[in-house]
Amino acid sequence: MKLSPLVQELIDSLKCLPGVGPKSAQRMAFHLLERNRIGGQKLATTLATAMEDVGYCKGCRTFTELDYCEICQSPKRQLKRMLCVVESPADILAIEQTGEFTGRYFVLMGHLSPIDGIGPDELGLDKLAVLLASDEFDEMILATNPTVEGEATAHFIADIAKKYNVSSTRIAHGVPVGGELEFVDGNTLSHAFSGRKSF
Amino acid sequence: MKLSPLVQELIDSLKCLPGVGPKSAQRMAFHLLERNRIGGQKLATTLATAMEDVGYCKGCRTFTELDYCEICQSPKRQLKRMLCVVESPADILAIEQTGEFTGRYFVLMGHLSPIDGIGPDELGLDKLAVLLASDEFDEMILATNPTVEGEATAHFIADIAKKYNVSSTRIAHGVPVGGELEFVDGNTLSHAFSGRKSF
Repeated sequence: MKLSPLVQELIDSLKCLPGVGPKSAQRMAFHLLERNRIGGQKLATTLATAMEDVGYCKGCRTFTELDYCEICQSPKRQLKRMLCVVESPADILAIEQTGEFTGRYFVLMGHLSPIDGIGPDELGLDKLAVLLASDEFDEMILATNPTVEGEATAHFIADIAKKYNVSSTRIAHGVPVGGELEFVDGNTLSHAFSGRKSF
Repeated sequence: MKLSPLVQELIDSLKCLPGVGPKSAQRMAFHLLERNRIGGQKLATTLATAMEDVGYCKGCRTFTELDYCEICQSPKRQLKRMLCVVESPADILAIEQTGEFTGRYFVLMGHLSPIDGIGPDELGLDKLAVLLASDEFDEMILATNPTVEGEATAHFIADIAKKYNVSSTRIAHGVPVGGELEFVDGNTLSHAFSGRKSF
């Protein structure tokens, strides 16, 4: 039995969400139709507006419907002469939650991946170079993901920073807090040893 | 740090989907913004149309944007003088996949639950009574969920059927195929014994 065309189309459209397969999509569609039409309508409106209006911050390339995001606009953040380079806007959220960093950000929206056609241009490194040349920053923290691609991207960007006499640092690798040493992989453990600190 | 208002609104709206918490909603929003704006736009359009247009089949109360759903329209199904009562449209899909039943359906859209204010009227039992009175059916199969509420609802509906001289049956309880006896709960197991069949 086929569902009615519109219901089937709704289920198929919901599958564009990450982690949503046919079964979840069906559950979501029925849930909205049965119990939350108002929520569904609101989602439809917001989604349409967001897909249309949300662009990239002219300062840091994060998602925003404004010209400049809240962080780039903040005068306090301008005073701190630090720039943190991350791969995605979600990383900014994670770092902001720690309260550890109060400078500005630059979002690459990915990492270098020549095989997927993602080179320096796609990551906005020309824009980053302009920022570094502006003499607004003393230090650039490379907070790309601790993956092979993230490391490669960090190295590539560190080379650019050298040109502009901005010192670049990489976030520390080591054992995660609260974990058990037994289950930490060898690579991380060797990083933790080579990066040891005196008490 | 707050996200830009529109992005935050998108994340909040996505939380209306079942099984989607703050983290998943954030992941979905960023995924759509980063990688699938077209899919997001399509979802928005379909969602708006579906929330507006999808109503209930005049025959069986399942979801459809038409007056009558495909099953209720099928002449073949009309000939089979059997009616299967289920709690939700998802149950129809599950039963249709087995190919075991070729009659028509009636969807309750829930089960009797006086504490939530769901009585016979909310389940459309007046409509069901009209169907049973129409002399179109010889048998009604009660396929409500094997829960306490589902059983109570089945019993309630079976009483209605008696009035109209339609024989009503309940789907069998027993051990699920492929399971291990060791892990089947006692209630199910006693059902399986009392409902045993001769080879």
